[in-house]
Amino acid sequence: MEQEGSKGVVGIDAVELAKDEGAVVIIDQTKLPNSLEHIRLETPEQMYDAILHLKVRGAPAIGVCAGYCYYVCARQDSAGAKSWADVREPLRAHKEYLNGSRPTAVNLSWALDRMEACAEAHASEPVADVLAALGRECRAIHEEDVRMSAAISELGASLLHDGDGVLTHCNAGPLACLGYGTGQGPLFFAHDHGKEIHVFADETRPLLQGARLTSYELSRAGVDVTLICDNMASIVMRNGWVQACMVGCDRVAMNGDVANKIGTSGVAILAKHYGIPFYVLGPTSTIDRACATGDDITIELRDPDEIKTMWYAEPKALPEVKCYNPSFDVTDHELVSAIVTEKGICRAPYTESLAALFEE
Amino acid sequence: MEQEGSKGVVGIDAVELAKDEGAVVIIDQTKLPNSLEHIRLETPEQMYDAILHLKVRGAPAIGVCAGYCYYVCARQDSAGAKSWADVREPLRAHKEYLNGSRPTAVNLSWALDRMEACAEAHASEPVADVLAALGRECRAIHEEDVRMSAAISELGASLLHDGDGVLTHCNAGPLACLGYGTGQGPLFFAHDHGKEIHVFADETRPLLQGARLTSYELSRAGVDVTLICDNMASIVMRNGWVQACMVGCDRVAMNGDVANKIGTSGVAILAKHYGIPFYVLGPTSTIDRACATGDDITIELRDPDEIKTMWYAEPKALPEVKCYNPSFDVTDHELVSAIVTEKGICRAPYTESLAALFEE
Repeated sequence: MEQEGSKGVVGIDAVELAKDEGAVVIIDQTKLPNSLEHIRLETPEQMYDAILHLKVRGAPAIGVCAGYCYYVCARQDSAGAKSWADVREPLRAHKEYLNGSRPTAVNLSWALDRMEACAEAHASEPVADVLAALGRECRAIHEEDVRMSAAISELGASLLHDGDGVLTHCNAGPLACLGYGTGQGPLFFAHDHGKEIHVFADETRPLLQGARLTSYELSRAGVDVTLICDNMASIVMRNGWVQACMVGCDRVAMNGDVANKIGTSGVAILAKHYGIPFYVLGPTSTIDRACATGDDITIELRDPDEIKTMWYAEPKALPEVKCYNPSFDVTDHELVSAIVTEKGICRAPYTESLAALFEE
Repeated sequence: MEQEGSKGVVGIDAVELAKDEGAVVIIDQTKLPNSLEHIRLETPEQMYDAILHLKVRGAPAIGVCAGYCYYVCARQDSAGAKSWADVREPLRAHKEYLNGSRPTAVNLSWALDRMEACAEAHASEPVADVLAALGRECRAIHEEDVRMSAAISELGASLLHDGDGVLTHCNAGPLACLGYGTGQGPLFFAHDHGKEIHVFADETRPLLQGARLTSYELSRAGVDVTLICDNMASIVMRNGWVQACMVGCDRVAMNGDVANKIGTSGVAILAKHYGIPFYVLGPTSTIDRACATGDDITIELRDPDEIKTMWYAEPKALPEVKCYNPSFDVTDHELVSAIVTEKGICRAPYTESLAALFEE
């Protein structure tokens, strides 16, 4: 059913294992919305480049992609190997290399670690059997993500009312999450289940995921969507058009602080000012138990040219002008009305409600 | 002195009357920062186009430009006229036409009304004498604006301390204001007078005035400036890098509500959240005595293609995706720490402090 939900929305999975198992096949999300192009990631360098340059992006999709990448690398690194002992070091080197492509996305290291643990659990078996176990494991990550996405979307949609306006930021929809999505999942779920909602999608500078991806997905799915610049969120809220904000997350600290796409904390502060609930949606794999507060989260700084020259026919600032280009920001837990996971809806105090997710 | 300040910063005036008095000469601000091009506005259509398409922009510069435009039109409309009675109607039609180019900018109608009042005061005189009076009047508007800008900049700079970080939005610097500027005037003034300041310039979507103009002006003047996307203002404030926000204004209501470039109200809400003072700077001509509160201010809605396609090699959203593209928003007076005018620094309650400006 979840697969149908995904196919129904974007018509195709954002990340797949090639039938020949020699590559990961992704939709190049940098080419949307003007062109739907698939690319094969065969070498570690192609994989690293695809993650670094956001051809595949969104925390769950990165996790799924990393699982498949690990598997494809394992197949290559084990060619001719007589035992897993011969594979371990080259594969670990590839794992560490891939892990460096996006420092903030916890799903990347989570999926790579899970794949490595799977390999180690089977390391005493013949190489072919280790590979078979890894093939099952990366497919399991994918299937779990689709189920997770459906659960989050249904829970999130329960927070929306017929006729609501919903403001969202960046992209955590079907392209990012391989099902309905997380941050935008409830929008598709609510629409599919007969609720009328009106979405305001922040364009999300500098990489414009909201314009290129979120408005694309929602529009294709027939959801009413209005694209705005990030700095228009305040007037849209002031106009009384927004009854809820929904965003995804890249990393959640155990106190409920949320790292998500740059600009998220600003949306949360506006929502508080205007008395609008601010919901964060993401899988429990995004909750980092090693991370007590948002201060422990490393914020990735990216190339100034993403601000000054990317997308443009001509530069929009002089070459000598400095830029500060953080990819994420941290939203204080006090600004978060609820964190919606596949296991349930957590509310303050988050130190208790998030910890409870891991107790069962 | 003020002229030197202006020339020192941008090397040239943004708006001038051509020596032959047959045109207004402006810097085409849509071509910056890559090219410094002057264009002649000779016909009402060229004038209307230049204001509509932001080739000349910034409230004070629009006022100065409108004064010169009126004068150039008056010269054309009075060709062969025997008395001002023959000029009045065609000139009024041109005035109304020009007045429709930007509905929110009060300086536009203010300058056109002032020019018309000047003409009417001299209407019984020979046509050549009316024209001479109009020529003096439009030059007076220009000179007053340069003086106004210097006064605001000096007062605003008194609110800054050595070492301060200052976040600013959009452009109200030398290009917009024909002197140091208003919203950014204190940054140039403080720098020129030996204060070390660190400016964070919002790029200001969708038209990118912060990137194209503010970072250009500040960088050329040697002021330390870091360009950010609008949605990065929150993290920059959270990092502790901002001790004051300074913005210009397009229209101020008598209760202190401020219409300014879209996104300004969001900056003000963030500043309040982080405990940072938020200063609005503008001439008393920007204060609209006919406007009791921000609810009385008409918000100009602009073309969706400014969000979806402008600047870009390829569209960034599907053609069928709707956009909401307001050019301005209203910042509630409760978010404003002070309004700095050429006549002094006004603080809450603004109904009293702003009214007092007009009592002397």
